[in-house]
Amino acid sequence: MPAIDGGRLLGDLRRLAEFGRYKTGVHRPTYSAEDIAARHWMGERMAEAGLAVEIDGIGNVIGRSAGEGPRLMIGSHSESQNHAGWLDGALGVMYGVEVARALKDDAAMGGRNVDVICFADEEGHFSNFTGSRSFVGQLGEDEIDRTTNRYDGTPLREALERAGLAGRPRAQIDPARTSGFLEAHIEQGDYLESAGLSVGIVTSVVAIWQYRIVLEGEQNHAGTTRMAIRKDAGLALVRLAAAIDQRFPAVAGERTVWTTGRITLDPGAPSIIPGRAEMLFQFRDVDPEVLERLQRTLEELVDAADAAGPCRARLEVISRSVPMAMDPRLVDALEAAAEQHAPGAHMRMPSAAGHDAQVVAQRVPAAMLFVPSIGGISHHWTENTADEDIVLGCQVMATAAERLLGS
Amino acid sequence: MPAIDGGRLLGDLRRLAEFGRYKTGVHRPTYSAEDIAARHWMGERMAEAGLAVEIDGIGNVIGRSAGEGPRLMIGSHSESQNHAGWLDGALGVMYGVEVARALKDDAAMGGRNVDVICFADEEGHFSNFTGSRSFVGQLGEDEIDRTTNRYDGTPLREALERAGLAGRPRAQIDPARTSGFLEAHIEQGDYLESAGLSVGIVTSVVAIWQYRIVLEGEQNHAGTTRMAIRKDAGLALVRLAAAIDQRFPAVAGERTVWTTGRITLDPGAPSIIPGRAEMLFQFRDVDPEVLERLQRTLEELVDAADAAGPCRARLEVISRSVPMAMDPRLVDALEAAAEQHAPGAHMRMPSAAGHDAQVVAQRVPAAMLFVPSIGGISHHWTENTADEDIVLGCQVMATAAERLLGS
Repeated sequence: MPAIDGGRLLGDLRRLAEFGRYKTGVHRPTYSAEDIAARHWMGERMAEAGLAVEIDGIGNVIGRSAGEGPRLMIGSHSESQNHAGWLDGALGVMYGVEVARALKDDAAMGGRNVDVICFADEEGHFSNFTGSRSFVGQLGEDEIDRTTNRYDGTPLREALERAGLAGRPRAQIDPARTSGFLEAHIEQGDYLESAGLSVGIVTSVVAIWQYRIVLEGEQNHAGTTRMAIRKDAGLALVRLAAAIDQRFPAVAGERTVWTTGRITLDPGAPSIIPGRAEMLFQFRDVDPEVLERLQRTLEELVDAADAAGPCRARLEVISRSVPMAMDPRLVDALEAAAEQHAPGAHMRMPSAAGHDAQVVAQRVPAAMLFVPSIGGISHHWTENTADEDIVLGCQVMATAAERLLGS
Repeated sequence: MPAIDGGRLLGDLRRLAEFGRYKTGVHRPTYSAEDIAARHWMGERMAEAGLAVEIDGIGNVIGRSAGEGPRLMIGSHSESQNHAGWLDGALGVMYGVEVARALKDDAAMGGRNVDVICFADEEGHFSNFTGSRSFVGQLGEDEIDRTTNRYDGTPLREALERAGLAGRPRAQIDPARTSGFLEAHIEQGDYLESAGLSVGIVTSVVAIWQYRIVLEGEQNHAGTTRMAIRKDAGLALVRLAAAIDQRFPAVAGERTVWTTGRITLDPGAPSIIPGRAEMLFQFRDVDPEVLERLQRTLEELVDAADAAGPCRARLEVISRSVPMAMDPRLVDALEAAAEQHAPGAHMRMPSAAGHDAQVVAQRVPAAMLFVPSIGGISHHWTENTADEDIVLGCQVMATAAERLLGS
């Protein structure tokens, strides 16, 4: 069994959190100076673990092992959401580094090899899964040409140039070399914590179905227009959103989540009746039947709002991803390792968030391991996980990697 | 009776609408090149009507009559809302010019004098009632220093400089000279049209009570956070807005209007549960008892939302104006003139929108006359009023002015 060094792992994670430190978390947007410095630092850690390091043209940091035979790839991403937590994807990258070190340190592990990867921009400062999509061959040069930073509008090309990445080749996965991909991540929810468990084995990544709901009425003066003749698109939106709130619990699955993330009233002035209103709505589940049922319900509610008048209501589909199942052999290996190190303290669960693993899973078998999030908090600087859970999760991953790489 | 010239009036209104023409309306924001050109053109019309013209340091155009005795002032404003209608305040200014011309043209009217005024920025591109507040002495230099354009941030000082107005003195009303103020305006609602009437005599200008309602929850991940533990500020806002929608009709007065003009969810991203939400809410009525009852209801609903949890809800008062009653003697004069020219085709009514008259009324007796808005539409380029109603309204105002100025 490759024994990981918990102190070394925690020390490295804490050192990594100094790049872009923000309160007890980090602010490390993709291709920021702090992000690029962190990537170079992680490349150095990979090199120390005996890996040949490349930082490619999209910012992915790849550490390749030298030995023979099939190998696993372990990793995640290292940039953060704005003013977010210190673990998130960084945890999964450092797990890869620590497993590589544990295999290298143990002579009995000879011949078992892992590659480590640190993807760029999983958090979507520029696009969605920018680094992992590049790695599986789904990111064209034309998309890079037209992509800009969603917060400040900086062209992706310019950001890559400033980061010293322009002109570098973009690495792609080699399924003949890589027998599987393992990603560790904080859970981000509170299922593990509230169940008193230490390890989650991800069975599938939920689908996200996203919609724009548009209400169109008639912009008018908020003083002189009688209530009876108004076509208030904002009010129509409120009524529709309230109807969704009433109806969805009855048709949702046990773990379904649904969210209105943005509401816009146009023109948005205090004394003008909104002529147009828009809301961004999404729901997530792993079950295609549940997803279809939710969409039918949403369609019914929007149609009813439209029919009720006086505003027009319409539903626009923004995106509908498919649930991505994790590979059963990898899932079993993670579960067996979890049972070995934390008997009875693990559970199978879906991932309610998107992860690089769902992208890589399109090319090679993939699976994920979750560690508990304290209070279920993530994407916030107070995000945290107990030290013992961080160390335990890494040991589970190391043992699973050993099993998968054969005796 | 001073006979107005309907063709001359309509011709001038149409010429004025060429400054900043937009489709069948105008786009003439305060201090834009088109607005300033229109002000100079109106100054020329006032001069032709025998008035001594001043364009003052805030852009008010004042045409002063030369004769003796007490005089009325007639006017309104000439800038428009963005991409709005051709009449709005421009109508009231041209009524003033036409009444001045009618008095000058009729030898029998000798000794009856009106001053004409065209206020700046009633529409609030920079502040609220900027020109009329300056005219009654309520606009300090410090406020001018700190005021900026609400759409593009241009400092008011810079806009005045560019318009050639910097350094000019700002004129103030002289209550010893001005015995009263009359303002004509399009109704902007559909009360006159739906009652089949041609003239509205304004008895009071409604009070506007404006609020900011703030909901505070906990920002979190829209995938990983279970529905049961969410503190979704956006959802709390929707529920509160729906409760207001349910409850207000029962406590409102017959002509009360209430409006949510803006909703903001923070951070406003599709995959983040809003941690904070805000809505701008207002209601309008002329009855202080109704206003107080509505505020109590609003307080109860916000308190109930706060008590229900899991988000905190609070109500912040932005402003509470008082209903401004028009002067009974001026109201009677307008009504008598309306009865003379349009027997039975007029009504007394409140103004549901704010107007310069409510500002001027703080210093001298004031009253207002409304002409019908086709379809109740205003602040939109399709705004219009039938030619015969435009002409009739001006004749009513001329006759009322004659009565008020004495025989």
